[in-house]
Amino acid sequence: MIIIGEKINSSIKEVHSAIAQMDELVIANLAKTQFEAGANYIDINAGVFEKDEPEKLAWLTEVVQTAVNAPLSIDSPNPVAIEKALKHNRNGTPIINSISYEKERFNSILPLVLEYKTRVIALCMDDSGMPETAEKRVKIAGSLINDLTQKGVASDDIFIDPMVQPIGTGSHFGVVALETMREVKRLFPEVHIACGLSNISYGLPSRKYINQAFLVAAMAAGMDGAILNPLDNQLMISIWATEALLGKDEYCLNYISKSREGKLG
Amino acid sequence: MIIIGEKINSSIKEVHSAIAQMDELVIANLAKTQFEAGANYIDINAGVFEKDEPEKLAWLTEVVQTAVNAPLSIDSPNPVAIEKALKHNRNGTPIINSISYEKERFNSILPLVLEYKTRVIALCMDDSGMPETAEKRVKIAGSLINDLTQKGVASDDIFIDPMVQPIGTGSHFGVVALETMREVKRLFPEVHIACGLSNISYGLPSRKYINQAFLVAAMAAGMDGAILNPLDNQLMISIWATEALLGKDEYCLNYISKSREGKLG
Repeated sequence: MIIIGEKINSSIKEVHSAIAQMDELVIANLAKTQFEAGANYIDINAGVFEKDEPEKLAWLTEVVQTAVNAPLSIDSPNPVAIEKALKHNRNGTPIINSISYEKERFNSILPLVLEYKTRVIALCMDDSGMPETAEKRVKIAGSLINDLTQKGVASDDIFIDPMVQPIGTGSHFGVVALETMREVKRLFPEVHIACGLSNISYGLPSRKYINQAFLVAAMAAGMDGAILNPLDNQLMISIWATEALLGKDEYCLNYISKSREGKLG
Repeated sequence: MIIIGEKINSSIKEVHSAIAQMDELVIANLAKTQFEAGANYIDINAGVFEKDEPEKLAWLTEVVQTAVNAPLSIDSPNPVAIEKALKHNRNGTPIINSISYEKERFNSILPLVLEYKTRVIALCMDDSGMPETAEKRVKIAGSLINDLTQKGVASDDIFIDPMVQPIGTGSHFGVVALETMREVKRLFPEVHIACGLSNISYGLPSRKYINQAFLVAAMAAGMDGAILNPLDNQLMISIWATEALLGKDEYCLNYISKSREGKLG
């Protein structure tokens, strides 16, 4: 599993004020703790700052890279902000989070993916909005993959995000996300599947159990990346257990070693 | 989900001694607590008693039926013991746990299924043993379903058990079980899929997390029955969360009501 640590997000109150006050310590600490907990990428988001987003995203890039030697997930729909962060990038290949099949977004972000040779998360939506059915999402995923690879992006650098909608607003949205993942993985086995977990449970009580069930079911459907909070040990345990269950942890050695390290509680 | 409560099993030390001493109170209490926790069937097993199994199973039948008004899962490969229990059955339609495609077992248990009009759990194994691959298990499942329905057993009364082997003894056994379930459900949507959960984690540390992940992944693959401990609240929470995730809990009303009842911890 490729884990993208989601904690450095300006929509979180404490993170917002840390960015506003340029409090390096808070940000560095969030980067370090997520990295130590198993994050492969550190997501950075300064979207709330609107016109100051480019400058704030560049600052986050510097602070996080000084704190940990992990690649970044640059979380913005704004090509100006993304490019500003990319110019400061020095810790390996980042992921741009994200492109979509909306014409303007696709055309403005693709050149950055190509010029800076980044990886990219691609959302299953286009200018007609977020599709209701798995079939339509798979179709958009196919168009995204075809267009991106034709332009020179390697399949292995593409992460398809099925777009998760809350089951509290539509009982079918869990199945739609899972079916999209399974079918994209079947059609394009060399492409990655990743998404944020927590949107699935929006508006429901005891969200963590829904998130955990979604994580397990999504991994079984082919998801091999996730944007999540790696400091949530129960989620990490679910990942290790599911990797063992799905035969992705030979002889269950990782699971057994997590147990020996006392990480299974 | 159809939940078969597994606690009244003679291989559990305290249950063994309760059966040996004919301690009605212990058995009645295990029946009641499992029923109140959500068990749809109460499994009864006296296999350890060997030659006394028929008499012990009949006694369990009486005690459990007096304690709760729930149907039984009669857990034995021994047709003499099963029939003795069936003669005492009065709480609705029981499940015989289990038949298989082993010739002798199939031929000795099928007449009981037909005569007493029971439901039946059918194991994906034949006289050549437990098959290694999902493909072979699906083939046996197909033969079982065809032969049982031709003899007059309704599809809705058949529960296919893929036979779960521990991932600690073979990293592929989780995928084999999940693929068997998915394919059987695809080919025979009107048949039920059920199995015991805990064998998957045999020999590993912190087994509960593997069992939970298996439960979620199996439900996503089409499993709609399970032989488990309904007193394990974490497992029950996983079931409620996964039903909501898979669109089997309209408007998530059951999940929300479990939260209001304080059952989500």
